[in-house]
Amino acid sequence: MHIECSKEILVNAISKVSKAVSPRSTMPILSHILVRADRDGLTLTARSTDMKIETSPIEAEVYEKGAIAIPSREFENLIRLMPTDIINIKTDDQHKVYIKSGKSSPKINGMDAELYPTDDEITTIEEPIEIESGILKKMIEKTKFSVAKDDSRPVLTGMLFKIDEGALNIVGIDGFRVSWVKHSNNYKGYIELIVPLPSVENVSKLLKDNETVKIYHSARNIKFEMSDCILVSSLLDGNYINYENLFNNTSTMNFTVDHTAFLNSLERAMVISSDAKSSAVSLEIKDDTMMVISVSDSGNTSNDELEIQNNTGELNIKFNNKYIVDVLRNIDEDEIVLNLNTNKSPLIIKGEEEDMGEYNYLILPINPT
Amino acid sequence: MHIECSKEILVNAISKVSKAVSPRSTMPILSHILVRADRDGLTLTARSTDMKIETSPIEAEVYEKGAIAIPSREFENLIRLMPTDIINIKTDDQHKVYIKSGKSSPKINGMDAELYPTDDEITTIEEPIEIESGILKKMIEKTKFSVAKDDSRPVLTGMLFKIDEGALNIVGIDGFRVSWVKHSNNYKGYIELIVPLPSVENVSKLLKDNETVKIYHSARNIKFEMSDCILVSSLLDGNYINYENLFNNTSTMNFTVDHTAFLNSLERAMVISSDAKSSAVSLEIKDDTMMVISVSDSGNTSNDELEIQNNTGELNIKFNNKYIVDVLRNIDEDEIVLNLNTNKSPLIIKGEEEDMGEYNYLILPINPT
Repeated sequence: MHIECSKEILVNAISKVSKAVSPRSTMPILSHILVRADRDGLTLTARSTDMKIETSPIEAEVYEKGAIAIPSREFENLIRLMPTDIINIKTDDQHKVYIKSGKSSPKINGMDAELYPTDDEITTIEEPIEIESGILKKMIEKTKFSVAKDDSRPVLTGMLFKIDEGALNIVGIDGFRVSWVKHSNNYKGYIELIVPLPSVENVSKLLKDNETVKIYHSARNIKFEMSDCILVSSLLDGNYINYENLFNNTSTMNFTVDHTAFLNSLERAMVISSDAKSSAVSLEIKDDTMMVISVSDSGNTSNDELEIQNNTGELNIKFNNKYIVDVLRNIDEDEIVLNLNTNKSPLIIKGEEEDMGEYNYLILPINPT
Repeated sequence: MHIECSKEILVNAISKVSKAVSPRSTMPILSHILVRADRDGLTLTARSTDMKIETSPIEAEVYEKGAIAIPSREFENLIRLMPTDIINIKTDDQHKVYIKSGKSSPKINGMDAELYPTDDEITTIEEPIEIESGILKKMIEKTKFSVAKDDSRPVLTGMLFKIDEGALNIVGIDGFRVSWVKHSNNYKGYIELIVPLPSVENVSKLLKDNETVKIYHSARNIKFEMSDCILVSSLLDGNYINYENLFNNTSTMNFTVDHTAFLNSLERAMVISSDAKSSAVSLEIKDDTMMVISVSDSGNTSNDELEIQNNTGELNIKFNNKYIVDVLRNIDEDEIVLNLNTNKSPLIIKGEEEDMGEYNYLILPINPT
């Protein structure tokens, strides 16, 4: 292989695919970036065992077609530091990579491109799901924090992408809380896909403003096709929790509270409770007041009084403080409505954002002792 | 104690002194901030075993004089999050601290102010050393990176502050390199003080623009008096290395090189050598060219050719790459002069900066094998 390419374009392409590199994999080749030169230009590919990111062909002068696997860390750092904007890369039969830029000429050992794993292509005769990048990004950001961190139930370490009745639903659940967003746009068919969280997080990072993303899938994989790259991810096997039913409990009480005042109050409570075993916060709701109270193991207390509106009940209930904070940090409204029932029933927060659609959050309380 | 104070002023004061808090000390009181209220206002103090930071009295309404030690982490985080700009703090006989701001009223457990360690006051009849904050900050930044990280020679874990022949000298040495800056300004007397690095780093952080710093000292302590706070630090015992003699070796060759080109070249070499046991860089100097070469254990190489001017010799010599990079990142000139002798003699870089004075750097080579 022998090519010449702009430094800026190459840096940009490397930074995209390097998100999928697995430096600590037991397969050394996975710490490499596969670089292929053909008549369309250069294509860069990186992958872990679950995920692949590949650029669309980038502009390059191809003097000699070919392919090589280049160690990701050295490749990324060296190219960034090259002294001129013209990068010349040449390989030899021993998979050595000769880089040249001005009077700087590093040489690094690559690996045979033939050793780089290939994957099943996703071939489907179905139409892809098409979605605007801004909406998809927002849906992911509003749900990803609820995905299970431990893998005692592997299926919950992924996010559900579900098409049903014309709507795309994205859901994260960790057993204590549910985050569910829903965007209706005449999506076709019925599809349930459980995508590992790291893949979804990388999709969110790769999304550019105002592009249309096409989502293809097979029984085992999902492919996100963006304007300048694709991300292919394996899917998780198993049955996801029936989250919709959880929202059917009728609330017997609800009230409105100022979003910022409530969030700030919970953040103060977190300072106090951070040395406690459970970072619990008590909400004591009565008439037009909600007391937000947190007590540490050493007896420090946080005690805030908030005004609430249209309150329909009276209740003392405890939650893991962080779970409510996560939700409030992802809502963009001046006021929010809290729906409650008993001190053993979940808190439900629902709403709609103009540019995305519905959001539904559910948080289980800490059982009274 | 009962006081009322502006949130902004209090946050600012806490952030200053909290640099000296020792959260992991075996003395629980050292994780606290001592707050004293008297007729001048509020004074905040924090200390570790080696260092104390104390604010000048800050403006506060003092309803009842007194003192209390408040846990630093909770105090800092809570005050930052208080909902209004007026902070009311009241204590009781059990050392409980009642904070009030709007409708938020946290309560935290403090400790008896009497338990807070007091230190020897620095009383000296001598005049303090006076220096402009900008100069002192620059002198510290240009030398601190050379201070020894391991404590095999405890005296080298401190920085030397030396007054001699009207000049203030600040020096850092780790056994492989010397960083020495010198500011002449009719400083009086002969003084040698070895100050622990963490104290000096905190002084650098606390310095504001355009203030005059007064430096007092006793046999055991040094005090930096700034416009709104003081920092008192213990001194290190022992004899510092005679660094001046090290610079007396006459160089038999020297040449000029572009600062940016040389630095960038060394940074590329670091990418290659970062997997090697010693991150060595070879400089091959001949005629008007310096080759900058680095080889990794796996045979990757970085190979740069740099133009040099006024070269007076020929030499192949190896250095720890990072040591030269540290120096170059702290020099603010377009061109630098490298002074060399044999491949077993140190590299010396000297110069002068208008607003600070002389700088002198020395780096020992890696012995040829």
